[in-house]
Amino acid sequence: MSQVMKMSRLYAPTLKEDPAEAELASHRLLLRAGMIRKQAAGLYSYLPLAWRSLRKIEDIVRDEMDAAGAQELLMPILTDAELWRESGRWDAYGPELMRLSDRHDRDFVLGPTHEETVTSLITNELKSYKQLPVNLYQIQDKFRDEMRPRFGLMRGREFIMKDGYSFNATQESLQETYDAMKQAYANICERCGLHALPVVADSGQIGGDTSVEFMALADAGEAALVYCDDCGFAADEEAATTSVVVTEGPGDGTLTKVHTPGMGTIEAVAAFFGFPENGTRKSLALIAEDGTPVVAIVPGDHELNEVKAEHLFGTYHLMTDEELQEHGLIKGFIGPVNLPDGIRLVVDECLRDSKKWACGANEEDYHYTGACPERDFVVDEWADLVTVKAGDPCPHCGKPLSGARGIEVSQVFQLGTKYSAAMGATFADENGEEKPFLMGCYGVGVSRTLAAVVEQHNDEHGIIWPVSVAPYEVAVIALDKKGEAFDAASKLADDLAVAGLEVVFDDRAERPGVKFADNDLMGFPYQIIVGKRGLANGTVEVKVRATGERSDIALDEVVEKVASEVKAARA
Amino acid sequence: MSQVMKMSRLYAPTLKEDPAEAELASHRLLLRAGMIRKQAAGLYSYLPLAWRSLRKIEDIVRDEMDAAGAQELLMPILTDAELWRESGRWDAYGPELMRLSDRHDRDFVLGPTHEETVTSLITNELKSYKQLPVNLYQIQDKFRDEMRPRFGLMRGREFIMKDGYSFNATQESLQETYDAMKQAYANICERCGLHALPVVADSGQIGGDTSVEFMALADAGEAALVYCDDCGFAADEEAATTSVVVTEGPGDGTLTKVHTPGMGTIEAVAAFFGFPENGTRKSLALIAEDGTPVVAIVPGDHELNEVKAEHLFGTYHLMTDEELQEHGLIKGFIGPVNLPDGIRLVVDECLRDSKKWACGANEEDYHYTGACPERDFVVDEWADLVTVKAGDPCPHCGKPLSGARGIEVSQVFQLGTKYSAAMGATFADENGEEKPFLMGCYGVGVSRTLAAVVEQHNDEHGIIWPVSVAPYEVAVIALDKKGEAFDAASKLADDLAVAGLEVVFDDRAERPGVKFADNDLMGFPYQIIVGKRGLANGTVEVKVRATGERSDIALDEVVEKVASEVKAARA
Repeated sequence: MSQVMKMSRLYAPTLKEDPAEAELASHRLLLRAGMIRKQAAGLYSYLPLAWRSLRKIEDIVRDEMDAAGAQELLMPILTDAELWRESGRWDAYGPELMRLSDRHDRDFVLGPTHEETVTSLITNELKSYKQLPVNLYQIQDKFRDEMRPRFGLMRGREFIMKDGYSFNATQESLQETYDAMKQAYANICERCGLHALPVVADSGQIGGDTSVEFMALADAGEAALVYCDDCGFAADEEAATTSVVVTEGPGDGTLTKVHTPGMGTIEAVAAFFGFPENGTRKSLALIAEDGTPVVAIVPGDHELNEVKAEHLFGTYHLMTDEELQEHGLIKGFIGPVNLPDGIRLVVDECLRDSKKWACGANEEDYHYTGACPERDFVVDEWADLVTVKAGDPCPHCGKPLSGARGIEVSQVFQLGTKYSAAMGATFADENGEEKPFLMGCYGVGVSRTLAAVVEQHNDEHGIIWPVSVAPYEVAVIALDKKGEAFDAASKLADDLAVAGLEVVFDDRAERPGVKFADNDLMGFPYQIIVGKRGLANGTVEVKVRATGERSDIALDEVVEKVASEVKAARA
Repeated sequence: MSQVMKMSRLYAPTLKEDPAEAELASHRLLLRAGMIRKQAAGLYSYLPLAWRSLRKIEDIVRDEMDAAGAQELLMPILTDAELWRESGRWDAYGPELMRLSDRHDRDFVLGPTHEETVTSLITNELKSYKQLPVNLYQIQDKFRDEMRPRFGLMRGREFIMKDGYSFNATQESLQETYDAMKQAYANICERCGLHALPVVADSGQIGGDTSVEFMALADAGEAALVYCDDCGFAADEEAATTSVVVTEGPGDGTLTKVHTPGMGTIEAVAAFFGFPENGTRKSLALIAEDGTPVVAIVPGDHELNEVKAEHLFGTYHLMTDEELQEHGLIKGFIGPVNLPDGIRLVVDECLRDSKKWACGANEEDYHYTGACPERDFVVDEWADLVTVKAGDPCPHCGKPLSGARGIEVSQVFQLGTKYSAAMGATFADENGEEKPFLMGCYGVGVSRTLAAVVEQHNDEHGIIWPVSVAPYEVAVIALDKKGEAFDAASKLADDLAVAGLEVVFDDRAERPGVKFADNDLMGFPYQIIVGKRGLANGTVEVKVRATGERSDIALDEVVEKVASEVKAARA
């Protein structure tokens, strides 16, 4: 039986006003409810209420990890820089990596993740394929020196993460572990009350995904997503691939030059032709990493995807005015027909079957209609170039995609041999041959999950905790400051605790209005209000925080009723 | 129900040989049993078995803290150096403090303790005496850049600590919190299976102790203790105070100069007189911090206590040969009689009633017998100077003290207003007057407790975990690699787990001898050995690791029997 926490003793200094620095609901409410406090930029203390919720999230994570066959350990936060030099990350990581020297001037890293440490840990101890797979995880403070720490717990410099690493002998085994982790992560989100989507972050060459991010949907999210309500597909806008539907341009299919004076934007051209932007073609001139000038074409209403473009062109840049001039291109009127010599033409796959393009004419103040690939110009390469957006068809089922913003709360990732090969971590396979381990890594942002839960579960009065991660499940609110009604409230709190619930008892000498406001702000799922008037009828009032529903329940039935509801709602 | 851990999947790489670097039993056994691994000097990974034990210790700590009214939170490890400058510790702490700068060149500290952070946290939020006392704690990785990290988990550079801080309005309230913490700490030791003594580290001016260290008795301990078996008194040798019993010197009480050629040591003088060393007087010449030359005298068989001497003389040093000469003192023959002018004579209290001293004569090759204070020389100050040792009488009950070595596993400390005054942390008292908080701090070395438990509970075969902190409570060992006996073992493991026990199942394809050795090394409290021969009689063998006791128990009774024993032994 857990003890009843008396609100008069609880360390939860609430704020009456919204703190000015907090933009996000989670940041604002966690501060106001006395659950977190900033110590320095990106550094927060978790006060007792938030810490209870965090521990519940940790326990849900543990439970799912253990059920999936992972084993918990704890590695040091301080990591010898030598390991990071071996892996190459000492130089590659940049200023987000927090570095320090010890008294003997030896370099150390405050681990942002632990691939190096865990790989060094198992090297020469995991020796044979017979011992594999091994899947190890830890829950720990992690460090990342963000340029602009912000949004409270969302993007801090010290944060709590579950990081896990698997060592597998074969791709098949890695895939199995990866799939089990993916399922565990979906379970974790669900048990924490998070509406989250598994978003394909990267499609592997071997078919299927090799990295999935779990995105909690929230307007405050930093990531733009597309997802399918119908089949469950979800992807980062940046990474999604689909067959964008394209409209043919205007005209009868004859290549026709049209005077479009001053119409250097898609918007202007589409308006001029009285045609959807999708029926025009957007031409972007850029210089690839190797110096090749390129014109890349996408449907007029879509954007060139930077990630995909980097994949094709390396570190490219859009042509400057000087470079446009040098290559004979006219800003706002670039197009595939009569393209100057030496420019490589790369076109998005979705335009392959489109035969009537409205596009720039490579001549000041002129566009073409009816431009047709192969007949009027030669495409050097068809490629995936567009940024997918809401309304595009789902690549799996063809239904229109929805758009949303998401908070990345966790990620599963097939690392392959990146670290094991660099660090010489090998095992003997069935034929006695030494091979680098296949590795996977699996991260959950534990403190960020807390913030995401608040982001999804709040209203104008405060936080609305899901029972599974609530700091306390039930608040008993005494309307009177002393006397029989107060004593009855105190006894009820004790009885609820004996029944196995986590109970806070608002015993403070405050007005009822203050108590109601504070308990709403702190977001306890069930509030039981005990006053003289109800007791005269043998009842107390039960308020469900999530729905606002209130009901008078007989005092001698309330423990059983609330206990059964709470227990059913636990994760 | 917890899952059965299969030994074939457990990540616990055992070592056949004793690791060369490990001097202590705990260090050696935790390495050998595959429970910890060194990542760098003073930095260890806790592998799954040790981590399970650590989590149990943490939970015992939490349970006792919560029961004593403390509230758990978590503060950042990274601490803004500004706070440390405010408290003065930035300059005072020295090279053990790990420091770093962020990308904006702001200084930070990796918290070795969190007095500054917690004080800053509550400042302006705890405002009135009505809110007090508040007692906050956290369990966290701490950092201390030890010059020579050693002894495995005993003295690491990153270690797990429970640190707690109380804020009180009055000395009476601080004393109450302090006493509750002291009791909780005693409970924690007991529940972890530690034989530990509460050692008075410092006696306060207000009467009673203001700091107590809990010392786990172990030959490997770094601290020398004296304690009383009879009344429970215990103290650090350095800090203990008692009435040392003194013997009178030889002779009839007449001041007599004796020729003692070359006898410049206590040992030689006592042998010469055929008298116990205690009957002689040891005179030490030193220079006090303010430059005063001092002769300090203690019984011949006791040492001058450096801590007490510093208390009296400031940063003193023993006289060099030059200084002895300058002050007219003769090495080996210093004494109180005929002391050259200008030398201050300070004598231990225990000698106040002794009238027949054997002591140096301040003349080469001569000692006195029968020297008597006041009659033959003037004492400038009587003071507490000696280091107490085994055999001295207990200051409480007078019985002879025992000596032992101890590992400091935890400490309670009354800080008073040290930090609150320096950092301007005040509250309004009953009269509305702003006063600095009275603070206490309370630390438990969680990872060190793990090491201390192993130090106290081991034999030549390995670790002997107390049930309360064992990684698993029961090991089921299958003698056969497959077949019916193996299946019976597997089923028994499941049944034990269903009965609520934490079970490891040794399912490995190893010889029985290897399994027995590994299970003894890992130290699971109960081992159940399942083989064909026993099963033919319907029995399995139960071995109690602590006693070595073995008994054949009927298969259909073993779950109930072992479950009831384990549950009774849980903390």
